[in-house]
Amino acid sequence: MPTPGRLISFEGIDGSGKSTQARLLAEHLRAQGGDPVLTREPGGSAGAEEIRRLLVEGDPDRWSPETELLLFTAARRDHLERTIAPALAAGRDVITDRFADSTRIYQGATRGDLRGLVDELHSLMIGREPDLTVIIDMPPELALRRGLARQSGEDRFEEFGLPFQTALHAGFRALAEAAPERCVLVDGNRAPEAVARDVRAAWEGMPV
Amino acid sequence: MPTPGRLISFEGIDGSGKSTQARLLAEHLRAQGGDPVLTREPGGSAGAEEIRRLLVEGDPDRWSPETELLLFTAARRDHLERTIAPALAAGRDVITDRFADSTRIYQGATRGDLRGLVDELHSLMIGREPDLTVIIDMPPELALRRGLARQSGEDRFEEFGLPFQTALHAGFRALAEAAPERCVLVDGNRAPEAVARDVRAAWEGMPV
Repeated sequence: MPTPGRLISFEGIDGSGKSTQARLLAEHLRAQGGDPVLTREPGGSAGAEEIRRLLVEGDPDRWSPETELLLFTAARRDHLERTIAPALAAGRDVITDRFADSTRIYQGATRGDLRGLVDELHSLMIGREPDLTVIIDMPPELALRRGLARQSGEDRFEEFGLPFQTALHAGFRALAEAAPERCVLVDGNRAPEAVARDVRAAWEGMPV
Repeated sequence: MPTPGRLISFEGIDGSGKSTQARLLAEHLRAQGGDPVLTREPGGSAGAEEIRRLLVEGDPDRWSPETELLLFTAARRDHLERTIAPALAAGRDVITDRFADSTRIYQGATRGDLRGLVDELHSLMIGREPDLTVIIDMPPELALRRGLARQSGEDRFEEFGLPFQTALHAGFRALAEAAPERCVLVDGNRAPEAVARDVRAAWEGMPV
C-alpha cells in the first residue's frame, strides 16, 4: 500500500485567482516529478459535474439555501468517492479548487444563519477536511470585477453583488483565523508568480 | 387563515398501481368539491423535476447510495418548499405519489444499511411526515412485469431486478406495521375501482 496522498484545497471568492494558483501548484508538483490530481468543486467527477450545472446556472433564487446545501453536499460526496478518495489511496496528492469551506462560507455565513446546519450535514455525509487549505485573499471590489469580466455563463453567485462578495471575503478571513492548523491566508492582490511562491511555501511547510 | 390542508402520500413498489390510485383519490376529492394538489416524487416542483432526471435515468450504479440519498433529499426539500407547504398553508389537501417513505425503503432498507443515516438526514432537512400514507401492496413479480412493460425510459430502479423488488415489498409491509398511526396497507392486486374504495375509506377515516 502506498503512503496516502494529501488533500489540498484552494478557497476564496470568485475572481481571487485561486483557480490559477491551484493550477500553478499542480504544475510545480509535476515539475518535481509528482503526479497530482487537479480537480474542482462543484464538480470534479462525472456525476458531480451534472449536479454542478444545476447549481451554477439559472436565477440567483432558483434554490433555497437549504436545497442548495443538499445539492452541493451531493456533488461533494460523489467527488470524494469517485475522484478524491481513490487518488489519495493510490498515493497521489489531490489539489481541489474549492471544497467544504466554500459551502461553509457561501451557504453557512451569508444566506440566512445556516452555519450550524452546514456543519451537521458535513459531519453526517462528508466527514473529512483537507490536509492544507490555501485561502487566496483579494479585495471584493477587485475580485468581483475580475469574476464578472469572464462572462462564463456561470455567474449565479456573482449576481448576488458586492455586499454578498464582501460578506464572503470576511467569512473566508474569519475561517483562516478559526482553523489555523490547516488554513493559510495568502495575499492574492499581487502578480500570480509572487502569490505562487507563498503557496509553494505553505505546501512545503505542511506536515507529511 | 384557512384550516391547513392535509398531506397524503401513496407508497409502494413500481407497478403497484399507486400512481393510478393517487389520481383516483384526487378525482374523487374534486368531485366532492375539493381542490386538491396532485403531485409526485422525485419531482413535484420545477427544481425537483430537474433533480429527478439525474435520479431516474442512467446506469443503476450511477450514484452511490449516499449520493442518491442526498439528491432525493434535495428534491424533496424543493418540493416541500415550493409546492407542498404553500398549498397546505392555503388550505388545500396535497396528494403525493411517493414521499419520504420511498427513501426510507429504497435507500434505507435495501442498499447497504443506511436506514439510520436516512432517518438522521430526514430529521435534519425535511422534518415532516404525511398525515396519511396509503401503501399499495402488490406481489413483486407482478409489479415488476407491470413496471417494465411501461418502457418509460425511467427504469433505473426496476433494473435492479426481482430480488431488489422483493426486498422493497417486504420493506413497505414492515413500514406499515411500524407506523400504524399514519399508514394504511391496501391490497393492490384487484381491479382499480375496488382498490380505490379502500383508499377512500382510509381517507374518510383519517383525523381532520
